[in-house]
Amino acid sequence: MPTANRLWTLASRPLELITPDVLQLKESPIPPLEDGQALARVNYLSIDPTMRIWMADIPQYMPPVKLGDVMRSFGLAEVIESRHPGFKKGDKVMGLTGLQEYTIVSSHVPHSFQKLPSIPFVSDTNFLGTLGVNGLTAYFGLLEIGKPQPGETLVVSSAAGATGSIVGQIGKIHGCRVVGIAGSEEKCRWIKDDLGFDAAINYKLPDWKEQLAAATPAGVDLNFENVGGAIMDAVLDRMNLHGRVVLCGLISGYTHQDPSLSSFGRVLIKRLRVEGFIILDFVSRFMDAGKQLGMWKMMGKIKDRQTIVKGFENAPEAINMLFAGANIGKLIVEL
Amino acid sequence: MPTANRLWTLASRPLELITPDVLQLKESPIPPLEDGQALARVNYLSIDPTMRIWMADIPQYMPPVKLGDVMRSFGLAEVIESRHPGFKKGDKVMGLTGLQEYTIVSSHVPHSFQKLPSIPFVSDTNFLGTLGVNGLTAYFGLLEIGKPQPGETLVVSSAAGATGSIVGQIGKIHGCRVVGIAGSEEKCRWIKDDLGFDAAINYKLPDWKEQLAAATPAGVDLNFENVGGAIMDAVLDRMNLHGRVVLCGLISGYTHQDPSLSSFGRVLIKRLRVEGFIILDFVSRFMDAGKQLGMWKMMGKIKDRQTIVKGFENAPEAINMLFAGANIGKLIVEL
Repeated sequence: MPTANRLWTLASRPLELITPDVLQLKESPIPPLEDGQALARVNYLSIDPTMRIWMADIPQYMPPVKLGDVMRSFGLAEVIESRHPGFKKGDKVMGLTGLQEYTIVSSHVPHSFQKLPSIPFVSDTNFLGTLGVNGLTAYFGLLEIGKPQPGETLVVSSAAGATGSIVGQIGKIHGCRVVGIAGSEEKCRWIKDDLGFDAAINYKLPDWKEQLAAATPAGVDLNFENVGGAIMDAVLDRMNLHGRVVLCGLISGYTHQDPSLSSFGRVLIKRLRVEGFIILDFVSRFMDAGKQLGMWKMMGKIKDRQTIVKGFENAPEAINMLFAGANIGKLIVEL
Repeated sequence: MPTANRLWTLASRPLELITPDVLQLKESPIPPLEDGQALARVNYLSIDPTMRIWMADIPQYMPPVKLGDVMRSFGLAEVIESRHPGFKKGDKVMGLTGLQEYTIVSSHVPHSFQKLPSIPFVSDTNFLGTLGVNGLTAYFGLLEIGKPQPGETLVVSSAAGATGSIVGQIGKIHGCRVVGIAGSEEKCRWIKDDLGFDAAINYKLPDWKEQLAAATPAGVDLNFENVGGAIMDAVLDRMNLHGRVVLCGLISGYTHQDPSLSSFGRVLIKRLRVEGFIILDFVSRFMDAGKQLGMWKMMGKIKDRQTIVKGFENAPEAINMLFAGANIGKLIVEL
């Protein structure tokens, strides 16, 4: 059994990006296991925009990470020693591992870790993305909040990201015209050619708003919004009267002091319905959604892609990659 | 029959308030009536925040007023001569009179004017406010979009305005705890002592946010928003998870170049549903709503107040009064 753990702790709250003073690499001894505990080695860390929210001392949907605590994150781990009745050595688990090399699975915190199921055509790391938080977010956000109807035009921002790429594919399954907005030609090719989006708009091109207008000749009925700011404003300008906005993320504002300003005026004039959404509200239905997502994945109706960053020491820089748009699909740190 | 009309035309689009270059007083001859026309003398002009939107060349729910055209407004008028089959001399009418002393009622534009009904305890000018646009806005916005439930906490901004004051009273009829936000002690006294709001917050006091918190011990379930900006932000901070916002107006932003910025972050974190709303969507049900509002008015369940500005030449300054919060209840220009 290893005797030392390495962990990234939250040393200070970020002002914008994750500068070197924000996360601090520490080493700490691993105490002997108590009854009801298992020790698991972390193999993969899920890198998600919401981590930037957890770092900030603002009202949010979970308590902010405390200064000095290990930084919160999802991850996959493998049990290497166990005094826990529910887990044995060799079990693969997923849950809130934190940004560290070893994590304790405790019977005092039930449901914090789950064993990984084994599903054909589904890799372990898919449980961090397509069959994890991103897939569930896409599923409940689009279907329960957005309620897409066949023939409607759906616009997805951050469309080559882990969540947006699945949103668009579920939109296609439900008969929508799907237009994705992404930040590079490669991303646009992927969502259009491989994932089957009807159109893909590269917002870094100078005429992207004209392209968005051309790609939405009947206006926009439904916006699955991951970005906020100027991109959201441009989509709202294309919305039809009484259109719906699923507000899933506002990543354009997470690294600014003045978060994600955007005008409510368009909401008023176009009588839009904007609904904020976080998957915690649907916990009791995760299992059913996971089965459906797994089915689509096995049938090839949902495809995905991963960007893997190797090395535990690169976790902070990986978080910054999200805000630079440097990932395609799910961003994962491999230990 | 008079031969000359005076009218306020839109000479330039306002940047902020209505400066002297925005509206221009003109005189024009009144041509002889054609078949199907009636001439009506305008007696009262309705002064509404939406006029500021109509002046701006931005996307909106009706076409912007064209430069050089008479400024659009609601009003009450009396027919003084008629070649219109539907109206005779002496008929009192309401409709889009425009900011002018005389208006033409034309059979070529059906439904643009209606005869004033006669209802006990209801004055003519009530058809501009409580039984007009403001009452209908309060009725449909609160009941159809907001769907208030007994025991819920409803917060109304611009609560001593023509619309907000009715919203709060309908909220009380429906069993809500009603908290109003207004900009003076006199306004607060009126909505609390005379209209029966449970609490009234004067947002000009330095500790108004603490007062708002104290007045909403169970948080806020429903926000009927007329103002936007910093006032809306403070209310959103008090909202419960899955609260609803009826977005009716954003008057704090109408006189700024950068309209009504407010963070969508709170909508996301609290999973709010924000819905923009304009009564044009409910035109087919105006009659039923008007009957209910009239009933409440007769029963004394809805009380109202008017701020009357005398003199046609004062119409531009009256519009500015709205943005200075200088009116209590319905603001009307009496000719």
